[in-house]
Amino acid sequence: MKPRVAITMGEPAGVGPEVVARALADRRVWEVCAPIVIGHRRLLEQAAKAQSLEVRFVDELRPRAAAGPDDVPVLLGELFDPALVTPGKPTPETGRAVIRWIEEAVRLARGGEVEAMATGPIDKAVLSRAGFGFPGHTEFLGALCETPRPVMMLASPRLRVVLATIHIPLSAVPGQLEAADLPGLLRITDAALRRDFALSRPRIAVAALNPHGGEGGMFGDEEERLIRPAVEGARRAGIDAVGPLPADTLFFHAREGAWDAVVCMYHDQGLIPLKMDGFMEGVNVTLGLPIVRTSVDHGTAYDLAGTGRADPESLVAALRMAAEVATNRARIAKNS
Amino acid sequence: MKPRVAITMGEPAGVGPEVVARALADRRVWEVCAPIVIGHRRLLEQAAKAQSLEVRFVDELRPRAAAGPDDVPVLLGELFDPALVTPGKPTPETGRAVIRWIEEAVRLARGGEVEAMATGPIDKAVLSRAGFGFPGHTEFLGALCETPRPVMMLASPRLRVVLATIHIPLSAVPGQLEAADLPGLLRITDAALRRDFALSRPRIAVAALNPHGGEGGMFGDEEERLIRPAVEGARRAGIDAVGPLPADTLFFHAREGAWDAVVCMYHDQGLIPLKMDGFMEGVNVTLGLPIVRTSVDHGTAYDLAGTGRADPESLVAALRMAAEVATNRARIAKNS
Repeated sequence: MKPRVAITMGEPAGVGPEVVARALADRRVWEVCAPIVIGHRRLLEQAAKAQSLEVRFVDELRPRAAAGPDDVPVLLGELFDPALVTPGKPTPETGRAVIRWIEEAVRLARGGEVEAMATGPIDKAVLSRAGFGFPGHTEFLGALCETPRPVMMLASPRLRVVLATIHIPLSAVPGQLEAADLPGLLRITDAALRRDFALSRPRIAVAALNPHGGEGGMFGDEEERLIRPAVEGARRAGIDAVGPLPADTLFFHAREGAWDAVVCMYHDQGLIPLKMDGFMEGVNVTLGLPIVRTSVDHGTAYDLAGTGRADPESLVAALRMAAEVATNRARIAKNS
Repeated sequence: MKPRVAITMGEPAGVGPEVVARALADRRVWEVCAPIVIGHRRLLEQAAKAQSLEVRFVDELRPRAAAGPDDVPVLLGELFDPALVTPGKPTPETGRAVIRWIEEAVRLARGGEVEAMATGPIDKAVLSRAGFGFPGHTEFLGALCETPRPVMMLASPRLRVVLATIHIPLSAVPGQLEAADLPGLLRITDAALRRDFALSRPRIAVAALNPHGGEGGMFGDEEERLIRPAVEGARRAGIDAVGPLPADTLFFHAREGAWDAVVCMYHDQGLIPLKMDGFMEGVNVTLGLPIVRTSVDHGTAYDLAGTGRADPESLVAALRMAAEVATNRARIAKNS
């Protein structure tokens, strides 16, 4: 049976409704999973109609595996008046619904009513004004799942990157790395590559922080003080990790398949190569959670909202990856 | 007449001799320039022989335009005993010759005896022990040409990047940016794109320092304090600059041709995308000098030295770009 995947619609004033509707009209999604939407039914219907999509949304009290785009269950489908929503103009009023959708998806996944969840784009500033106390989705999901250390991985067609630091100023990166628990990050990455991506002997590259990998200490010492000891410790624990490797030459080889994932020290170090490899097809995966969670890797794109020009490829890829990870986990749990 | 280009051989124990010999056996080089080598004649002959290349090196007191690979002039060809040199094992003894080769190339270029120079890879640590007081080629050339502000540009087939900070620890980048004179960098970049690359209206993108371009100040304020004012000042001065733009999405569009150059805030921000676009074909160009200077963008690669496996593509590209820039400068000087 295909895994059931709960999709949260994300910020109603962003491109969430239209990319969800378009992804649900895409047979590549139905080939691999049974999707269920947690979002606003009438907004989804409007988005489908505006784009002339053959998708029919139905209210369902309980999620079940839908047969195809003629019959997509929508949960919590009427939490607010859709007249509140103007594309491109977020308001604080709908923020509570957005948060509740995410909570509901986690509840379904933890309760086994779905095998995975995939999240649409949210607006952190809007949610913050609605009382959301987390920097982003990843940290919120960690709290809901009682997982102290959720790890963000991003995947493009030929790269997987894991971030040791994420949404902080560049000037704060070296300081935050001092406390970043790189050994733990390597363990979680290795475990996820085995369990979620079905790799029996994952190969992990670890990027250096400084140019030329610090050039023997001339351009910084984090490589020798922090990164090399973490890599050596991981190797002693049986993890096939290499590094620190100079970041400028590393991604060319990573894209050619030299490693299964690259652990990066800061946001743009991982995101620049990822978006060069697959600008529209990036997927965000949270490692280390008890549930399977993927996400689009783009934002609300208010400038595109309501135009029908938003590209659904990231959500399609997120749904396909959610199904793949759920299938791998189930198979590996069965065999062990 | 084809421009004459002086090639410095670089560190004798590195891949310099073999990539110079291979580039000189490549007709793509002879199609566009008349090369002259400043280096060690017998080491070049050995490298040519070991690789079965049809190149003949001749001693010449004065450079002249050679007719083809049967007759390549070599200047300062016997400065040391070649028995001093073992591939892969640099020694301090040859460092003075490496420095003198660079000085000689600059002298020829400033005196109009060649139209451009292209440099082979040097080992900064070895030169430092030989008394070299500069962080790298670029700064040395600036001093030799009395140019206070040489600017490093790197070019791959589809990208040109300019670096606001270069070989420093990542932790020093935000501090050094405070004093980096971004307005001057934008002026030099714009002028070089016009004069050296013959672009009548160059389009320049300026990368942000922080993730998501600082996300409205949440992840750093350098964008608003330093980068945006520099871009706005440049625009008022007639330079078509845009930014600060989030670095993760910028390079995808840059590679598609949206801009003629990208001004980057730190080494890996520019070098990661550059090496993903053209790993073997990167060229380093120094902007703002009175002479034309390009360089390979790789190091001495001691692990490959003497094996014949070093790829000459970067030097071939550097020679072709030196010829192109020299031709553009001559044409623009004639027309103005």
